Amino acid sequence: MQLKFSKWQGCGNDFVLVNGFTENISNIQEQAIKICDRNYGIGADGVILILPSSTCDFRMQIFNSDGTEAEMCGNGIRCFARYVLEAGLSDKHSFTVETKAGTIIPQLITNDNETMVCVDMGTPVLKGEQIPVTGYGNNRVINEPLTVEDHRFNITCVSMGNPHCVIFVDDIKKIDINKWGPILEKYKIFPNKTNVEFIQVINRTHLRMRVWERGAAITLACGTGACASLVAAILNNLCDRKARLELDGGNLSIAWNENDNKVYMTGPAKKVFEGIYDSE
Amino acid sequence: MQLKFSKWQGCGNDFVLVNGFTENISNIQEQAIKICDRNYGIGADGVILILPSSTCDFRMQIFNSDGTEAEMCGNGIRCFARYVLEAGLSDKHSFTVETKAGTIIPQLITNDNETMVCVDMGTPVLKGEQIPVTGYGNNRVINEPLTVEDHRFNITCVSMGNPHCVIFVDDIKKIDINKWGPILEKYKIFPNKTNVEFIQVINRTHLRMRVWERGAAITLACGTGACASLVAAILNNLCDRKARLELDGGNLSIAWNENDNKVYMTGPAKKVFEGIYDSE
Repeated sequence: MQLKFSKWQGCGNDFVLVNGFTENISNIQEQAIKICDRNYGIGADGVILILPSSTCDFRMQIFNSDGTEAEMCGNGIRCFARYVLEAGLSDKHSFTVETKAGTIIPQLITNDNETMVCVDMGTPVLKGEQIPVTGYGNNRVINEPLTVEDHRFNITCVSMGNPHCVIFVDDIKKIDINKWGPILEKYKIFPNKTNVEFIQVINRTHLRMRVWERGAAITLACGTGACASLVAAILNNLCDRKARLELDGGNLSIAWNENDNKVYMTGPAKKVFEGIYDSE
Repeated sequence: MQLKFSKWQGCGNDFVLVNGFTENISNIQEQAIKICDRNYGIGADGVILILPSSTCDFRMQIFNSDGTEAEMCGNGIRCFARYVLEAGLSDKHSFTVETKAGTIIPQLITNDNETMVCVDMGTPVLKGEQIPVTGYGNNRVINEPLTVEDHRFNITCVSMGNPHCVIFVDDIKKIDINKWGPILEKYKIFPNKTNVEFIQVINRTHLRMRVWERGAAITLACGTGACASLVAAILNNLCDRKARLELDGGNLSIAWNENDNKVYMTGPAKKVFEGIYDSE
């Protein structure tokens, strides 16, 4: 079977996009594993299907490289939005997208020949037991001391639909993330485990972030992590309501809107190549 | 700039192939780094150019993912040979290819709807100082004891244009290759460092191989390593003149011909996808 696809990346998080209006993938979960394989397949972090929807303009389905279906992905939906415009599926610069995490409304913004995509990432959850973090009840977890193996951290916890533990450091280069990431991820106060972000405040509109993703490792970019980190920085009065998050994989502009309490992420998405895959 | 390419793999070693008769890549070394990047580019172990030659039917140039030019690559030339036939550049099943390691003559062999490629990998070098291994002069290095950090190995050394240190083990699963590979690679008796192969003899026509590649890490496949391992096994009277080498990335059939003293490698090459890359 031959499958038409295009390959996109957003902050280094990369996806195979398939137009579900014209292409059909049977056994998508099994195929996603093969397609994402970086030696034997096309190679990607995930497969995104652009599909018709009965409730929205489009529907996005996203499958991880292990074949499981993801609810949503901030870097992925930016690629989705640019694809829709480029493939001529819509001529609007904003449209509704049905996802397993609800309706998302990406907005395409073109400045200086560069098209960025802004995505409403929802409202941050700050109550300890809802994040969840054990031992804080309904209280927020802001700059709380945590001693792990004789090392003292100060943690700020935020959920953006998934849990994040944000730690501010003086020098991001001096943190051994491969050591502390997995220890903190599984620390006893996080019943669902947690993503771990280390942030160096460059100034009030510029944060340097590195992330240990739950169940993964150090990754180039984590959209929800960037949102949680901006919220955490604001709660600690370390930055303004809008800042540039400098990730290993690129930059994201994150804003926590005072009016609607939502977090907006603006970032790039870029087509790398298009092709025809010989699937079996 | 838009670049037409196709993506191939042989035993999981994967390459972007570009038809140099019709496509032109300027700054190939710089572009190879970008093209091979697995998040921001197409993603590959190397870029192979199919070019005209003044002395052979074709010329192969191969660039590693770090932009350096390689002399030759056993897995790569199999992809090259199948590409030439599939792209209609030749209707012969054997042709001469100019490479930096001399003229290579791949042969396409079709059996049961599967096309394999046989490549003459040249004559093994067995004299210690030519491999090079220090301390053995012109003698062969066969089943020689080597004690490293209180661990006793028996090593057999072979050069196939690059140095290999082959170690036979009872159970390949019990060897910590990530520990011993880099220690042996840089051990003092190897002035040019060495590749390290661990071999479990399944029977006289079937060897299980895992490889630590010099300057790299554990890799899915190493063509010269498979050739060196067969030669080493024959020198130790552990297998026949022809055997199946079972690598992490797939199977190779290796034969050490008694008449011409050359080693022949037969293995698969498979097109995964073709595409158009948006280079900058």
